[in-house]
Amino acid sequence: MDLVAIGTVESPLTDRAGAPKQGDEGAPEAWLVFAERVADGLDGIAAGDELLVLTWLDRAARDVLKVYPRGDPARGEHGVFTTRSPDRPNPIGLHRVRVLDVDGTRLRVANLEALDGTPVVDVKPVLGGIDER
Amino acid sequence: MDLVAIGTVESPLTDRAGAPKQGDEGAPEAWLVFAERVADGLDGIAAGDELLVLTWLDRAARDVLKVYPRGDPARGEHGVFTTRSPDRPNPIGLHRVRVLDVDGTRLRVANLEALDGTPVVDVKPVLGGIDER
Repeated sequence: MDLVAIGTVESPLTDRAGAPKQGDEGAPEAWLVFAERVADGLDGIAAGDELLVLTWLDRAARDVLKVYPRGDPARGEHGVFTTRSPDRPNPIGLHRVRVLDVDGTRLRVANLEALDGTPVVDVKPVLGGIDER
Repeated sequence: MDLVAIGTVESPLTDRAGAPKQGDEGAPEAWLVFAERVADGLDGIAAGDELLVLTWLDRAARDVLKVYPRGDPARGEHGVFTTRSPDRPNPIGLHRVRVLDVDGTRLRVANLEALDGTPVVDVKPVLGGIDER
């Protein structure tokens, strides 16, 4: 199962220690820069949209199964699948972002805590209620 | 970027034509059967939990960038990243399920529309509000 990058994150965040735990905890604005070959797939995305961005957390450790939630030893160790730790067998990041601006294959977004250079692997809409689909 | 399966879906659903579009549109109960080597990562998961399950949609087409949402030509073609189509460059499925039962490394779940045999690649908790993290 081979993932291909469809784009890259451009962000002022460059290391994990300086990044917020989640995008809505103070992440700076960032850009999603997509490959031209997937431009057609972006058709219809507009400023104001709420999107789910999936990334490949390329600086994560893949051999981790137990973690301290939010890095807090006082919480005790938990199974990694009950947490949002980037360290996990398949380090796929799931980020809910708001589109601020669309410039061709570049999207400016709010609420993205991924580090600069992180590969983007998928984008999905936030799913509305059954009657909105 | 190589994904490794951490488990597999066991479901009565065997083909796309017979599967609901989303898990909350009538999906039958299913099992998530995890590899023993990731058992520690499941620690703390209990009946009643709401989880996000990430799968590899192995029967999807990866060369699709425009689709008719929900297969409905009357809606016109849309960029695939504005839809939940399984056909997309990296066919990662994102499923919100409810845990009904835990039996070792097997989880019985409600609201999973993935087909029988679909590889599971990650599990994450649904994220609560900032004050619940």
